[in-house]
Amino acid sequence: MKVDGRACRTIWREPGAPAVQVIDQRDLPHRWRVQVLRSHEQACVAIAQMWVRGAPLIGVTAAYGMALQCVADASDEALAHARRLLDSTRPTAVNLAWATRRMHEALLPLAPAQRAAAAWTLADAMAEEDVAVNAAIGEQGLAVLRERAAVRRRDGAALQILTHCNAGWLATVDWGTALAPVYRAHEVGLPLHVWVDETRPRNQGASLTAWELAQAGVPHTVIADNTGGHLMQRGQVDVVLVGADRVSARGDVCNKIGTYLKALAARDNDIPFYVAVPCSTLDLGVDDGVAEIPIEARSPREVTHISGRDAHGRIVEVQLTPDGSPALNLGFDVTPARLVNGLITERGVVAASDVRLLSRVPPAPGTAG
Amino acid sequence: MKVDGRACRTIWREPGAPAVQVIDQRDLPHRWRVQVLRSHEQACVAIAQMWVRGAPLIGVTAAYGMALQCVADASDEALAHARRLLDSTRPTAVNLAWATRRMHEALLPLAPAQRAAAAWTLADAMAEEDVAVNAAIGEQGLAVLRERAAVRRRDGAALQILTHCNAGWLATVDWGTALAPVYRAHEVGLPLHVWVDETRPRNQGASLTAWELAQAGVPHTVIADNTGGHLMQRGQVDVVLVGADRVSARGDVCNKIGTYLKALAARDNDIPFYVAVPCSTLDLGVDDGVAEIPIEARSPREVTHISGRDAHGRIVEVQLTPDGSPALNLGFDVTPARLVNGLITERGVVAASDVRLLSRVPPAPGTAG
Repeated sequence: MKVDGRACRTIWREPGAPAVQVIDQRDLPHRWRVQVLRSHEQACVAIAQMWVRGAPLIGVTAAYGMALQCVADASDEALAHARRLLDSTRPTAVNLAWATRRMHEALLPLAPAQRAAAAWTLADAMAEEDVAVNAAIGEQGLAVLRERAAVRRRDGAALQILTHCNAGWLATVDWGTALAPVYRAHEVGLPLHVWVDETRPRNQGASLTAWELAQAGVPHTVIADNTGGHLMQRGQVDVVLVGADRVSARGDVCNKIGTYLKALAARDNDIPFYVAVPCSTLDLGVDDGVAEIPIEARSPREVTHISGRDAHGRIVEVQLTPDGSPALNLGFDVTPARLVNGLITERGVVAASDVRLLSRVPPAPGTAG
Repeated sequence: MKVDGRACRTIWREPGAPAVQVIDQRDLPHRWRVQVLRSHEQACVAIAQMWVRGAPLIGVTAAYGMALQCVADASDEALAHARRLLDSTRPTAVNLAWATRRMHEALLPLAPAQRAAAAWTLADAMAEEDVAVNAAIGEQGLAVLRERAAVRRRDGAALQILTHCNAGWLATVDWGTALAPVYRAHEVGLPLHVWVDETRPRNQGASLTAWELAQAGVPHTVIADNTGGHLMQRGQVDVVLVGADRVSARGDVCNKIGTYLKALAARDNDIPFYVAVPCSTLDLGVDDGVAEIPIEARSPREVTHISGRDAHGRIVEVQLTPDGSPALNLGFDVTPARLVNGLITERGVVAASDVRLLSRVPPAPGTAG
C-alpha cells in the first residue's frame, strides 16, 4: 500500500546488509519511524514490544529473525535457541510458531555454511507469499462484500463495514487480511464506509486502521469499542469483518480482545460476521479455542496509561486511572465458531466448521506452500 | 461516602449564600476541585459539560438550577425559560426532565415572592430523597448479591461483580445506584471484587468508579471495555450490575454506550444481569426503548482526544487518532428487556417486564414522594 503516495511494505531487506527494516508502529499515526533489525534478539524485541504486530507480520518478522541468527551463528544449537526465543515473544498468534518451525525444518538438513543464504531466500519467499495470500484474500472477500452490498444497498448508499483492531496491511507484509477486501472493493468502486473500533487497549484501530484507511482514501469513522452494538441495533452496520490470530480446528476464532462482543451483537442483529485469515492462522492442533488457546496477559500499564500527541506535537504518555487501582490487560478473546458466518481465506470462503476440510484444499497457485 | 476519610456528597448548599457547590468530576481521579453554581445558567453548564453527571445527580442539580432561577427572577416566564434550558442540556436521562417538572409544578401555584424559599426547600428534599432512595437500593441489592454469593461462592472466594460506567455515589447525591449494593455488601463483610470497565469514551469507569472503590477500600480491577466478555467465558464474573439513565415501560434499559454488549455476553454465559435504578428513572411514556429513546451524540473530540496525568502531575489532553479521521461519539445504548434479569429499585427487585406494575407500588417510607 502507499504512504503519502509512495509504495511501502511493513518489512523489507536493508540493501547490501544482513539486516531488515520495519515500520515502528508504536508511534503511529503521530510519528513515522523505521527501525533496523540486525539480530534475532532485535527481532524478538520488535515482536515483544510491538514495533511490529499482527499475526502474519509477526510470522514473517520471526522468519527473518531466524535468518539473522544464521548470519551470526548457523549451528544447530544456535538455531534451536533462536527459535525458542522467538516463539516465546508472544504466545497467542499461531503464525509465529508456524514461521519459525518452517524455517527451522528447512534449514536443519543443510550444512551450516549453506544455511544463511537459504534462510534469506526462504524468509523472502515467505514475505512474498504473505503478500500473494493477502491479495487472494482480498479477491475472495471482495465477492463477499459485493454479495452483501447487493442485499443491503439501497439507492447507491455505502456498504457499512465494522472492523475491530488492525487487520490491515500494517498487520501483514502488505494488503492486510480483513482490510484486503476493503481495499479491493474501494479500488473497484464499490461505495463503502468503515466503522473503526478504536480497540482498547493499545488502540490499534484508532491509531493504525484509521491511519491506513485515511492514507488509502477509504471513508471511515472511528468509534469507541462500546459503540458497535448500538450501531447494529440501528441498522447502521451491514457486515462485520475482522482478522484473527489463531483459528481452532472447530472454527473458534482467537482475535484481539473484544471481538467476541462484536460477534454476539452481530448475531443478535442478524448481521453476518466474517473472519479473514490466511491458512497459516489455522491451528488443527487446537479444537476448543475457548479452553485451549493461551491468552496473552500484557502489562497493566497499557490499560492504566495511554500515549498520544499533545498540543505541541509531542508524543506524551498520560495516566488514566487512580494510583491505587490495579488493572488487568488481556490481549485476546475467543469467538466460538457458532457466531462466525464464514472464514475468508486465500483458498476460498468457508464455514467456520469447515476448517479441517479447508486444510486439505490445495493452495492457490503462487500463494501458500 | 468518604473522601480521604471525610464524609462528602456530590452537591451541597453553600452556607449563607443562594448557591450550591458541586464536585467538578472532570479532572478526577487526578485533581479534586469544587465549583460554585450561582445561577441556572451555571447549572446548565455544569450538566452539559459534565462537571456533574449520572442520571440522579443531573436531576438534583437541575432542581437546584430551578431554585437558583427563583432567586434571580421567579416570574412564570423566567421559570418556564429555565426549565426549557435545563431540559435541553442532556437529552437521554429522564431524571432531568422529571426533576424540573416536579419543581415547576410545585412552584407555579405559589406567588412569585414565595417561590425561592419553596424551591430551596423542595430541592433540598429531592437531594435527601435521592440519598434515601439509593440507601434503599443498596439494601435491596445486598439481598441480590448475598443470594448470588450463596450460589457461586466456593471456599470463601470473593463474589465477582462486573460494572460498566459510573453508577456510584458520584452519579447521585450519595451512595450511588449500582454501587450502593456493593458498598453495603462491603460494609457487612461479604467478600467481593469488582471488575471496572474503563468505559470509553470519557472513561467514567477508570476515572470515577475506580477512584470511588479505591476510596472505599473495595477490591477492584480496571479492565478495557473489550475484556468483560472473555472474563465471563472464563467463569470470572458472577453477576453484572449497572445503573441506567432511562428505563422504558417494557423494561428496555438505556445506559452508557456498551452496556448492551455486556448484557449480550452475560446472557451468552448464563450470568445474571441486573440494573439498579431509582423509580424516577422509569419512563412510562416510552415503550420501545431501542426505537424511542433519544441517544445523545456528544463531541467527537471525546473519542479523538483523551485527558490524563502526565509524568509531571499535569493534566494533559492528547490526540489518539490521525488528523484525517472523523469520529462518532454516541453516549448511550439500549439493552432490550429480554436481556435484563432484574431491576433493583428502592421499592423492590422486579423483572424488567414489571416496570408498569412497579410504578403502582407505593414508595417505601422516607424515599420517593
